[in-house]
Amino acid sequence: MQDGYSATKIKALVKAQPKGHALLRGFYKDPDIYEAEMQTLFGRHWLFAGHVSQIPNIGNYILVEFDTESIIVTRTEATEFSAHMNVCRHRGSRICLEKSGHAKSFTCPYHAWAYDLRGNLIAAGQMEAGFDKTAYSLRAVQVENIHGFLLISLADAPLSLAPMKNALGDILPIFETENLQLAEMKSYEIEANWKLAVENYQECYHCAPAHKEFAQIHAMARDLPRFKALKSEYEKTMPSGGIMSEKNGYFDLAEPGAEGFQYGRNPLLEGCQTGSKDGTPLAPFLGRIEAYTGGASELMLGPFMYFLIYDDHMVGYRFRPTAIDRCVCDIYWFVRDSARAGQDYDLEPLTWLWDVTTEADKTIIRRNQAGVNSRYYKPGPLSQMEHFQQSFLNWYLAALGR
Amino acid sequence: MQDGYSATKIKALVKAQPKGHALLRGFYKDPDIYEAEMQTLFGRHWLFAGHVSQIPNIGNYILVEFDTESIIVTRTEATEFSAHMNVCRHRGSRICLEKSGHAKSFTCPYHAWAYDLRGNLIAAGQMEAGFDKTAYSLRAVQVENIHGFLLISLADAPLSLAPMKNALGDILPIFETENLQLAEMKSYEIEANWKLAVENYQECYHCAPAHKEFAQIHAMARDLPRFKALKSEYEKTMPSGGIMSEKNGYFDLAEPGAEGFQYGRNPLLEGCQTGSKDGTPLAPFLGRIEAYTGGASELMLGPFMYFLIYDDHMVGYRFRPTAIDRCVCDIYWFVRDSARAGQDYDLEPLTWLWDVTTEADKTIIRRNQAGVNSRYYKPGPLSQMEHFQQSFLNWYLAALGR
Amino acid sequence: MQDGYSATKIKALVKAQPKGHALLRGFYKDPDIYEAEMQTLFGRHWLFAGHVSQIPNIGNYILVEFDTESIIVTRTEATEFSAHMNVCRHRGSRICLEKSGHAKSFTCPYHAWAYDLRGNLIAAGQMEAGFDKTAYSLRAVQVENIHGFLLISLADAPLSLAPMKNALGDILPIFETENLQLAEMKSYEIEANWKLAVENYQECYHCAPAHKEFAQIHAMARDLPRFKALKSEYEKTMPSGGIMSEKNGYFDLAEPGAEGFQYGRNPLLEGCQTGSKDGTPLAPFLGRIEAYTGGASELMLGPFMYFLIYDDHMVGYRFRPTAIDRCVCDIYWFVRDSARAGQDYDLEPLTWLWDVTTEADKTIIRRNQAGVNSRYYKPGPLSQMEHFQQSFLNWYLAALGR
Repeated sequence: MQDGYSATKIKALVKAQPKGHALLRGFYKDPDIYEAEMQTLFGRHWLFAGHVSQIPNIGNYILVEFDTESIIVTRTEATEFSAHMNVCRHRGSRICLEKSGHAKSFTCPYHAWAYDLRGNLIAAGQMEAGFDKTAYSLRAVQVENIHGFLLISLADAPLSLAPMKNALGDILPIFETENLQLAEMKSYEIEANWKLAVENYQECYHCAPAHKEFAQIHAMARDLPRFKALKSEYEKTMPSGGIMSEKNGYFDLAEPGAEGFQYGRNPLLEGCQTGSKDGTPLAPFLGRIEAYTGGASELMLGPFMYFLIYDDHMVGYRFRPTAIDRCVCDIYWFVRDSARAGQDYDLEPLTWLWDVTTEADKTIIRRNQAGVNSRYYKPGPLSQMEHFQQSFLNWYLAALGR
Repeated sequence: MQDGYSATKIKALVKAQPKGHALLRGFYKDPDIYEAEMQTLFGRHWLFAGHVSQIPNIGNYILVEFDTESIIVTRTEATEFSAHMNVCRHRGSRICLEKSGHAKSFTCPYHAWAYDLRGNLIAAGQMEAGFDKTAYSLRAVQVENIHGFLLISLADAPLSLAPMKNALGDILPIFETENLQLAEMKSYEIEANWKLAVENYQECYHCAPAHKEFAQIHAMARDLPRFKALKSEYEKTMPSGGIMSEKNGYFDLAEPGAEGFQYGRNPLLEGCQTGSKDGTPLAPFLGRIEAYTGGASELMLGPFMYFLIYDDHMVGYRFRPTAIDRCVCDIYWFVRDSARAGQDYDLEPLTWLWDVTTEADKTIIRRNQAGVNSRYYKPGPLSQMEHFQQSFLNWYLAALGR
Repeated sequence: MQDGYSATKIKALVKAQPKGHALLRGFYKDPDIYEAEMQTLFGRHWLFAGHVSQIPNIGNYILVEFDTESIIVTRTEATEFSAHMNVCRHRGSRICLEKSGHAKSFTCPYHAWAYDLRGNLIAAGQMEAGFDKTAYSLRAVQVENIHGFLLISLADAPLSLAPMKNALGDILPIFETENLQLAEMKSYEIEANWKLAVENYQECYHCAPAHKEFAQIHAMARDLPRFKALKSEYEKTMPSGGIMSEKNGYFDLAEPGAEGFQYGRNPLLEGCQTGSKDGTPLAPFLGRIEAYTGGASELMLGPFMYFLIYDDHMVGYRFRPTAIDRCVCDIYWFVRDSARAGQDYDLEPLTWLWDVTTEADKTIIRRNQAGVNSRYYKPGPLSQMEHFQQSFLNWYLAALGR
């Protein structure tokens, strides 16, 4: 089964999955499952390509890569973007070789077929008579700019982004997310199936045992009753609406045919202003924020991209598979666009928390993969602190079994 | 075929195997065969976990690992042992991370589920109401202590060890095998299917061409008529019974439903007292032995574990697959428990013979794998000196085709 | 599917292939396709083993290796050669361990089974009564010497070489190809399916964009009208017949049941005498050549071996798969047998052009593989400059779908 997968086998595995439990071994190990995921999840849902500030000028591009796929995302006009498969329409060579850069057009390095920024074939030498350039544009990929976040979809009929846009239309302007700059980006290779990495991100049941740095800052690392109490106290100190709006359209809560999203704000522990080693400030305030609020916002844009928005910086977590048993977590650190490195912020303290946390997670997740590889692994019941992961699993099973 | 295998295909391959010949290519290359072996051979037969002296105190543990599996073997009482799969019952993480150590209980590093030394779940925070800890013990593995040798079985209904215990009950006390200490252990990674490594161990047809060091010491490296003559002479010099008892319950000689074993004693070449570079002594006598006897004993405990017992030390050889085309041979060097390193024995001379021999075997076995990988490989007939290997193959084919 | 492949699936893929286009993804990715190729293409067609000068004396041998296969090619008499699978008939070990050498007989390093240079088993100790040595010769491989080129075929009924011999009988003596010596050989590992490497060699559509060094010397790097004009001018300066004979029996032009071949001569660019950095001479003239002719000959011997014959040296390109997604291009540099290194030629300038060109191709071909790995890759139409590759693809599809 090279280019396809056995839908019958997958449906049987989905049916065998016990409710409320961790996934069965096959979901992490079966190549048919992985192929189906690439086609029906990563080929259908919106993926985070990057932030508009990463490609500020016309002709700037970035690549998005997962599994065997590579997509070129380009700024074509002051406020317009295009995205295309990075696969030549002649004999399939990669066209763009650098992960980011600037181009007036894209010329395939193999036989010099050239494409404009919109993917139209503009040069192809020595072709037979009757060759029609217009039939050989690069395969187009949908791209959308949501308050500075560039999302792409490989689907022919992409999921609707309208509910996400509506829900976040009042919130993202608070942080002026379009006016950010990327201070640092780092890719963490994780020797595990991508779901184990995503599931790890989705629950804070492991925060207290495994992440003492995080647990010193974030209330959500506390047990559920304590977290609920802290959150309730925090909500009293903050005006409702605006930054405190809860927006839940994630996973199994998403409207049919629409992409999932989520927004909410949680308290930091007492004395913590932001996600730094000692809780003290890291960078100038984002957007319209004028004072530390003692909280941080969770933001989810589609199933594979999560943000944590502190008052003075934003961290992004992008998950992308590279093989059935390997994935990458790309971490982005954003500050407001006017901030100057070395003066208004320093990279080391800015990146400290999520670097130590993600390095720890790499180890944790690899051990989880080692265990689920066992023929004697049996999925156990999820805890109360794994409800968000449970929602992901419900969505995943439904999407795969469709 | 992820979690199962095609029994029909395997039966056809077993049927196609020519009698008295090396195995067909498919037995070394087909992933279905390998999966069947893991389930029906390694999941059913007794495996050597280690020696009691490796875990002397309550709470001491060692891991046994093969393929995707990891088992924790622990001393729970002065003379009691337990074994469990090293897979958390929550979401499947590895629990024990060190190959050996000491623990009062086992706490999973992921979400802090904790198990006592007998595998009972004793802590699991934040679970839903109605969660019953008693239903989530670690998956138990059978463990038995036979005169200091710890054997484990993953089977629900393990093979009987009674014939082995009966047969060896008069013999192992001669060497006081429970009163040994592990002087050294070394793992040799072999780039070949595990059967090629085991087959290599089982025959001495290659000893003269490939192991000049071994061939200078052991009579069994001589051709069959010469070996038989030397053995016959040796037997005349030794009182029958006891150390000279032959116990054959190996492979196709094993009782139905019982584990295989073997014991026998063979002469060393003239002038050799033990397995050392010049045949001179290496360490204090084992057990009740009071003088060099000019021989060494072969001991087999289950299909994957072999020992060679000289008068003054014992060497163990454990074979375990790590993938279809890779395995490990763990070599153990034991001396009597009262011997002091640097005074009563030195590691370098003690380990010399089997280190050079096993390093040579790594190369030999890798070349064998390279050849059987060929589409043009055709299994040839076994020689008279490969009778023990033939018994292994008979058993293997019967076990696989069952 | 370990030892076989699904012919039905392959026929369906062949049927789905669009005419005149690059190959569908499955041809580069499907393990069944690869297995079929190894059996029906590499197991059936003639492969280049080397040049007679590489094994000048009786007992000299070279190995030919591809995928899981290894073949020993030996000089058995002053003008006779033999070839055999490098797989012991006992338990399958590799016998010959060095890539080239000298032997009086071949003794398997495992159990000392010994074979004479013609592959006959001459020693096998300790076998059971009735063992018949004559039944255990090494598996024979056909070998032919064509004007110094040693070709081998693994087929039981090899393709006829008569048309090739007839066609080249007037031409190879011009270069006295039997009187060459190997000045240098280098193996380039390419991280791509072997067909992408062969296709790359077969077309010069990419020469201008990708190989500026080659394009400064060879007219064939020019666009088709310009190349045709240069070739036509060149033909006027040269007497027809002899070195200028065109011999086309390649791929889909080969006679049924016969091996493919090709010979032709193309102009170098003005001022270039040979394939050197500045077009100046590199070594003494080959064979009967007495003056630079301003051209170079293309020679193809079977589907996987190509030569470029300049007036003063010959370069050979051998393609062999090592796995579905990896192959090796072996490059041979030959000069006339009387030439002395350091005096009549220097290695660095001799090997410069094809070393830089092949290093560039390694990168180009790997990028092509990256692109065809994409689920969104769609084969495009071939250009006029890819007609030779088209012939290869026609042959390939017919051979595979047979």
